[in-house]
Amino acid sequence: MLGVCYYPEHWNEDRWETDARRMRELGISFVRIGEFAWSRLEPSRGNYDFAWLDRAMDVLTKAGLKIVLGTPTATPPKWLIDEYPDILPYDEQGRPRGFGSRRHYTFSSETWWRESARIVEAVAERYGEHPGLVGWQTDNEYGCHDTTLSWGPEDLKAFRRWLRLRYQSADQLNEAWGSVFWSMEVGSFDEVALPNLTVTESNPATRLDFWRFHSDQIAAYDKMQCEIIRKHSPDRWITHNFMGFVLDFDHFQVADNLDLASWDSYPIGFVEKFPFSEAERNRWAETSHPDIAPFHHDLYRAVGRGRFWVMEQQPGPVNWAPWNPIPKPGMVRLWTWEALAHGAEVVSYFRWRQAPFAQEQMHAGLNLPGLDELSPGGREAEQVAKEFAIVGTLPEVQKAKVAIVFDYQSYWTTKIQPQGKDFHYEELTFRWYESLRRLGMDIDFVRPGASLDGYALVVLPCATEISVDLERQLRRFDGVLLIGPRTGSRTRNFSIPDNLPPGPLADLTGHRVLQVSTLRPGLAQSVTGEAAGAAIRWREDIEASGDVLARFGDGMPAFTRNGKIHYLACWPDEALLTATMAQVLDAAGLAKFEVPDHVRLRRRGNLVFAFNYGEDDWQVPAGMRIVLGESNLRPYEVTVWQA
Amino acid sequence: MLGVCYYPEHWNEDRWETDARRMRELGISFVRIGEFAWSRLEPSRGNYDFAWLDRAMDVLTKAGLKIVLGTPTATPPKWLIDEYPDILPYDEQGRPRGFGSRRHYTFSSETWWRESARIVEAVAERYGEHPGLVGWQTDNEYGCHDTTLSWGPEDLKAFRRWLRLRYQSADQLNEAWGSVFWSMEVGSFDEVALPNLTVTESNPATRLDFWRFHSDQIAAYDKMQCEIIRKHSPDRWITHNFMGFVLDFDHFQVADNLDLASWDSYPIGFVEKFPFSEAERNRWAETSHPDIAPFHHDLYRAVGRGRFWVMEQQPGPVNWAPWNPIPKPGMVRLWTWEALAHGAEVVSYFRWRQAPFAQEQMHAGLNLPGLDELSPGGREAEQVAKEFAIVGTLPEVQKAKVAIVFDYQSYWTTKIQPQGKDFHYEELTFRWYESLRRLGMDIDFVRPGASLDGYALVVLPCATEISVDLERQLRRFDGVLLIGPRTGSRTRNFSIPDNLPPGPLADLTGHRVLQVSTLRPGLAQSVTGEAAGAAIRWREDIEASGDVLARFGDGMPAFTRNGKIHYLACWPDEALLTATMAQVLDAAGLAKFEVPDHVRLRRRGNLVFAFNYGEDDWQVPAGMRIVLGESNLRPYEVTVWQA
Amino acid sequence: MLGVCYYPEHWNEDRWETDARRMRELGISFVRIGEFAWSRLEPSRGNYDFAWLDRAMDVLTKAGLKIVLGTPTATPPKWLIDEYPDILPYDEQGRPRGFGSRRHYTFSSETWWRESARIVEAVAERYGEHPGLVGWQTDNEYGCHDTTLSWGPEDLKAFRRWLRLRYQSADQLNEAWGSVFWSMEVGSFDEVALPNLTVTESNPATRLDFWRFHSDQIAAYDKMQCEIIRKHSPDRWITHNFMGFVLDFDHFQVADNLDLASWDSYPIGFVEKFPFSEAERNRWAETSHPDIAPFHHDLYRAVGRGRFWVMEQQPGPVNWAPWNPIPKPGMVRLWTWEALAHGAEVVSYFRWRQAPFAQEQMHAGLNLPGLDELSPGGREAEQVAKEFAIVGTLPEVQKAKVAIVFDYQSYWTTKIQPQGKDFHYEELTFRWYESLRRLGMDIDFVRPGASLDGYALVVLPCATEISVDLERQLRRFDGVLLIGPRTGSRTRNFSIPDNLPPGPLADLTGHRVLQVSTLRPGLAQSVTGEAAGAAIRWREDIEASGDVLARFGDGMPAFTRNGKIHYLACWPDEALLTATMAQVLDAAGLAKFEVPDHVRLRRRGNLVFAFNYGEDDWQVPAGMRIVLGESNLRPYEVTVWQA
Ligand SMILES: [Zn+2]
Ligand SMILES: [Zn+2]
Ligand SMILES: [Zn+2]
Repeated sequence: MLGVCYYPEHWNEDRWETDARRMRELGISFVRIGEFAWSRLEPSRGNYDFAWLDRAMDVLTKAGLKIVLGTPTATPPKWLIDEYPDILPYDEQGRPRGFGSRRHYTFSSETWWRESARIVEAVAERYGEHPGLVGWQTDNEYGCHDTTLSWGPEDLKAFRRWLRLRYQSADQLNEAWGSVFWSMEVGSFDEVALPNLTVTESNPATRLDFWRFHSDQIAAYDKMQCEIIRKHSPDRWITHNFMGFVLDFDHFQVADNLDLASWDSYPIGFVEKFPFSEAERNRWAETSHPDIAPFHHDLYRAVGRGRFWVMEQQPGPVNWAPWNPIPKPGMVRLWTWEALAHGAEVVSYFRWRQAPFAQEQMHAGLNLPGLDELSPGGREAEQVAKEFAIVGTLPEVQKAKVAIVFDYQSYWTTKIQPQGKDFHYEELTFRWYESLRRLGMDIDFVRPGASLDGYALVVLPCATEISVDLERQLRRFDGVLLIGPRTGSRTRNFSIPDNLPPGPLADLTGHRVLQVSTLRPGLAQSVTGEAAGAAIRWREDIEASGDVLARFGDGMPAFTRNGKIHYLACWPDEALLTATMAQVLDAAGLAKFEVPDHVRLRRRGNLVFAFNYGEDDWQVPAGMRIVLGESNLRPYEVTVWQA
Repeated sequence: MLGVCYYPEHWNEDRWETDARRMRELGISFVRIGEFAWSRLEPSRGNYDFAWLDRAMDVLTKAGLKIVLGTPTATPPKWLIDEYPDILPYDEQGRPRGFGSRRHYTFSSETWWRESARIVEAVAERYGEHPGLVGWQTDNEYGCHDTTLSWGPEDLKAFRRWLRLRYQSADQLNEAWGSVFWSMEVGSFDEVALPNLTVTESNPATRLDFWRFHSDQIAAYDKMQCEIIRKHSPDRWITHNFMGFVLDFDHFQVADNLDLASWDSYPIGFVEKFPFSEAERNRWAETSHPDIAPFHHDLYRAVGRGRFWVMEQQPGPVNWAPWNPIPKPGMVRLWTWEALAHGAEVVSYFRWRQAPFAQEQMHAGLNLPGLDELSPGGREAEQVAKEFAIVGTLPEVQKAKVAIVFDYQSYWTTKIQPQGKDFHYEELTFRWYESLRRLGMDIDFVRPGASLDGYALVVLPCATEISVDLERQLRRFDGVLLIGPRTGSRTRNFSIPDNLPPGPLADLTGHRVLQVSTLRPGLAQSVTGEAAGAAIRWREDIEASGDVLARFGDGMPAFTRNGKIHYLACWPDEALLTATMAQVLDAAGLAKFEVPDHVRLRRRGNLVFAFNYGEDDWQVPAGMRIVLGESNLRPYEVTVWQA
Repeated sequence: MLGVCYYPEHWNEDRWETDARRMRELGISFVRIGEFAWSRLEPSRGNYDFAWLDRAMDVLTKAGLKIVLGTPTATPPKWLIDEYPDILPYDEQGRPRGFGSRRHYTFSSETWWRESARIVEAVAERYGEHPGLVGWQTDNEYGCHDTTLSWGPEDLKAFRRWLRLRYQSADQLNEAWGSVFWSMEVGSFDEVALPNLTVTESNPATRLDFWRFHSDQIAAYDKMQCEIIRKHSPDRWITHNFMGFVLDFDHFQVADNLDLASWDSYPIGFVEKFPFSEAERNRWAETSHPDIAPFHHDLYRAVGRGRFWVMEQQPGPVNWAPWNPIPKPGMVRLWTWEALAHGAEVVSYFRWRQAPFAQEQMHAGLNLPGLDELSPGGREAEQVAKEFAIVGTLPEVQKAKVAIVFDYQSYWTTKIQPQGKDFHYEELTFRWYESLRRLGMDIDFVRPGASLDGYALVVLPCATEISVDLERQLRRFDGVLLIGPRTGSRTRNFSIPDNLPPGPLADLTGHRVLQVSTLRPGLAQSVTGEAAGAAIRWREDIEASGDVLARFGDGMPAFTRNGKIHYLACWPDEALLTATMAQVLDAAGLAKFEVPDHVRLRRRGNLVFAFNYGEDDWQVPAGMRIVLGESNLRPYEVTVWQA
């Protein structure tokens, strides 16, 4: 199904009917509205104006559209900020971040919670039972623009409260953080300082707790909104539109409050944000890398416990990356089909019409700026809608054979303490995902501590802390397991485990990490054995009691096996990574199907989807029953066949 | 004619006479003084000390020198800043910029206007009728060191006043800025915030108005000084010494108050500041790029409505660039002749003698540090003075055949919203200028909205907003017109025009821009047809109703013609740019005369000047009547002949 | 002798005895303790707790270890900062630098002096006569983490006091600084402003005085601690552990108060901090550059007037560089022997055991994190201890034949006014040192103004100001002298000398500098003659009255000789540098012995040490009586023979 994001408040009221009709004609079923409209819903304190939104929702409903309504908390209006400046967030440099764009609030402000509750209540009360309403979106893109962490006086107050609950006494806090080091001990919680603007590095244990504290706050804040909404709108679902590559808070935890996950898919913009090489950025500039969107689809399917939408789908060039190329013709259609292949219930384009004014005026829409005329991307969306008739109802999504454990906290931990400047958790995980998909695999992501039952192969690229739940699941898992570097390297208190890494997993993996080497770009250490290639960036000196499958040039173990449990003691280059994955897939009895770097496959029920991100054709295996597209998969094209 | 900048307050009074005599012996006619001397003219509030300046001006006048006197407002003294700290400017990070160098004031401070008026009045009253005085310089290098914009409380107050005048009501401001987007609406002008330190990008319409506001302030401030000066010194001219590549305010507007323009020419320092490639920076490190100074000469000739000086001419190595090489022997002379060839009335060297103390102690002068002994650059100036006798009085400057429309606001607009990180307005304009000069053209710059009558070819590299005046002139122009990308892409309120770009020019150019692609370095899109090469950085998808002269690889129009009006829908690489210029020069019936990349020509009346910036000789066309130099133009040399 | 840094407060008391015993078993004689323990020694104001340290010192003493006790002033505890926030330092951006790591104080705070005196007095009184105590360390790593300079209100107050003493009157200050330039004159010392956050460059004379002021403060602060210690502990020596490549204060001046110098040697971490090329960083990533540690050994031997320790020796990977590789096996041993070869009395490893918590948890120790088990580095230390028996007592260090004059102030001067962005004083000096060592030389460093008697060759890479003492020593020196660029280019007041550079040395060198060219990377100017190669980065135009040994491509003198005094008028590339050094060594009658770039020699008494930092073997000259190692010097190995 298709959807679209729409802003009735941006257009003259006499255009709404035409817009709604043309949406339906295009094949759109859902429309998301309202999430930035606070200044129109409450132009000054207490003076609510719902009349315009009543009319807009009626027009949309009458046209047959189903409405998703956003709470407007991402954009508190100026009168509110002037009344309560303590709402503003602070950056890590200690400066307040001002009014004039969006997300200008800190989750630590008690004022903000009260005001948020008030506007959410007002909106939920008014529209909770509206016949056109099918669901809610809370706020907009938590964490976007680095807004998870805030470093102001309200944050310090709330952080101290959070610490008091966690540690009970200053002594226990000092003990947990190792504050004796450098005389950092505090006599009471009121002595705790923010971990920014220190002379040199602040205590990593403090910084991790500061990060956890903020992540907890987002979950609690979202829960507060959900509870209000559910009170007034018990029969509608609630989601939040997460961003891509914003890993600053635990999305699993936030989604515990939600009925389904959704995310905002800007495949080309993300190419500039992800730590790709310049060569890769050039290669994928106009199509995106073929794993960027799928990685997120699969991750958010896990976050949504099986249910997810693409709430915002890039429909053409955007405005916010350093460079913003037009996608290759066909890509908007390809991305849409790909989201569906990965299980998206709805793909909703952002936005109906390019706004000719304000910050996003260079962001494409399905219609040209200000006009009732489809953009190139709009015409591709139209084509997808027509193809629905050919493909028919999509089958249920099946559980994959391969799972990746994804751990937000490990991202925080390795950001706090990179040890090597280019150790990026998200890149490590992405490369492992990419490698498995190059070998033809479908992949599920799994929350740390969730059940691993039923998978033939589980990979854990890096989990710095092994929680009790995660340990339990790893111990009961009976398939093939591949564990990556730094796993088990930290306790809950950000210390090195008493028995050295991997701490609680030592008996499972049969190894112990003595010391770690981080390697600047240009340095590599060869690895030979059953998997060959080189270690880059990160390399561990380990002792191993199990089988050594591959060794570094100096003879130390690089890749080990203890029963079905494999450990890779380095950041692998592409050759070593591919060989490692081949090894564990073989061990798990999974058949590999290698695809070129610009082609990807994805199964949904009995359908197989193939996507071509490159300039060269690719041939579908002979004898397939093709449902959509051709057996010669041309550039930027999609082919679907029955498995 | 030659001039020099001199600071009597820096030297013992008993050296003044020798200095003046040696200036005259060198061939210097004009001397600029006084522009940083406030702390000596008024050592504490109200205690004026003019005696020393009286004596200095008498010594200079007696020696036969004509004096240009600067108002000392670029350096308010410490006692004044301590008395009124609200004079200080604020940087974009919200920090006050302190005392201790120069230009430490904001144009928004009412205190500052009052104090400026007071000191200007005192100086103008004292010296307005001095027999040695020929003209005035207001302040020094407006905008230098990023001092056009300021972000403090005084600026917010003044900005709100300016907005109130422009928009009358908050509703009209909200409408103009599209503030409904992201709930940015304000209830009154007192709710308007500065557009800095926002969580993500602030509204570009706000930022453009903020920029216009500051540009207006400079013009008004300069006008205030001029009015005071004219009251007391009605028979002298007034100029301001503009900087190179400072485009933060509208120089045409400031010059409306002035009798002539002047600028400060540091050709080598600018090589490090302009967005050249590293290869170009290395190539031109010791000579400057051959279009850097000429570009400014031609631009300031327009700013000065035909009259300009070089007020400060680099006489050797400077101190303020990341690297400061000694110019190749001959370059100081070459730059001097080049300024004259482009119409400079006077070339005034900065400074008479290198000061061995304080910030500019590594900045060369015509004399060695502290000594009465010519520096290498001083000896080149001496040579120029001798050559005046050979060349004789220079003929009048003639109108060129080719004009470039130069638009300061387009620089602001594209800085506010680059969309592609390397879209630099000044570079685009510079490359078009360079390309035309490589084909042998003399060039006039034209203010947007000024008459285009009499030109055979007008090029408009980029004018984002088409003002009513500019549209009128373009419509009445009957020569060949070449228009570049992004032209007409914004309304006065920084919106996309209702009919899409180029807005009001749509019927002239016969095209419409649907979407824009910005291309990272390394990406290029081939262009073939009557002009061939590649698009880099910026490429538009356009619909065209006229002739398509060249197309992108995907078949879309790249270069179009509608009657005599040409449109180039991209940032051209060098090959495409040269081919495009050749095309329009042919269309305009102008004969090309191609020169190598290190040689440039310039005509002044019946004289032709040739300049050699490179290491290879160049042959003057045979049979010319040479006035200065040789027919074999050697490196760093000048040849002048009669046309 | 070997030592180790130990933190009894980090470990359960029941582990102390084992630790002490195992230290002795390893061969360790000295243990440094206490320098970060303030929060344990005084948990709240006035509540001293010495009991635990009493017990710890007794345990260590009983085990036969000799104790070095650090004053704990590098880490003032939180209660003290909360009581007196004026202790905090300010960064150059004007922000207070907060509590939460270390060195969070400014030397300008009077409160801080009082509180420092109090805690030092308490500790010195308690332990001054402890039988296990052999010496004291004041504070920890002055200047580390950019803590020499501070830019807060306390600093401004103290700076004004310092200026009043230096200049007596505002007039003299204005005169000295050339404040008339840009109207920077002050009417009283209370008008002096900090030289940061100015609109453009602040006055370099002010900045140099600001730097001197801070350097003086460190010396005075350290002296204050020393005087208190000496009162209570008259029979023990005092040192301070200086850092590598922290040149922000005058170490010679601080060491005037000390009995011996010590320094903290992290050879691999420094590779990332020193301005090496990327190629050099890759080449030496796992061994360090072969001159990094020796350069400091030789420098600190001079700072300590012949006596120095390595107080902290890197024992494996560290945590604080962008990348932190494991040293090649053998390097910990090699570095230890090398320090001894250069005259270190003790090499003390940092630290006994890797701490599994807080900021340095990834910093290796002699034992694995939290364990009683030697790390790989620990085993190398053990090997060194065993080898002591083979080599026996080391002979006395002899005076070298070659000396380098090292001048901290020239580092400050060239940082304040680089003129060319890549003129790094420390790099220039390092390259000259490296070049001499590649030719087989042992080197002494000499403080400017100290006696040069007895050296055959003295090199002075750069001394911007020629003090009276330095001039006197240079005039009386009768060996061969090589002087480098910028020498004598500034007076005491940061002006260009009246007679141009080299100012007071003009008659000695026989040259005068007319102007200077700084050359961006990629530019070079060839030099030919008795020394050939190229000038990069910096080149002077000089007039020379003596012999011209080599000339630039344009014929101007590049390398001159006036009697025995040589002057090099540029930054030499490697070829020119080597040729220059060969020339002056020949002139001094010193035999060269060229070694490959990965091998270095060092003599101590009658012993010659050879060290191999590379992957290729090196052959010891035939016929030597080898004391340790083999005649075939393998990678990362040491060979010692009798000369
Ligand atoms: Zn966003
Ligand atoms: Zn300037
Ligand atoms: Zn340190």
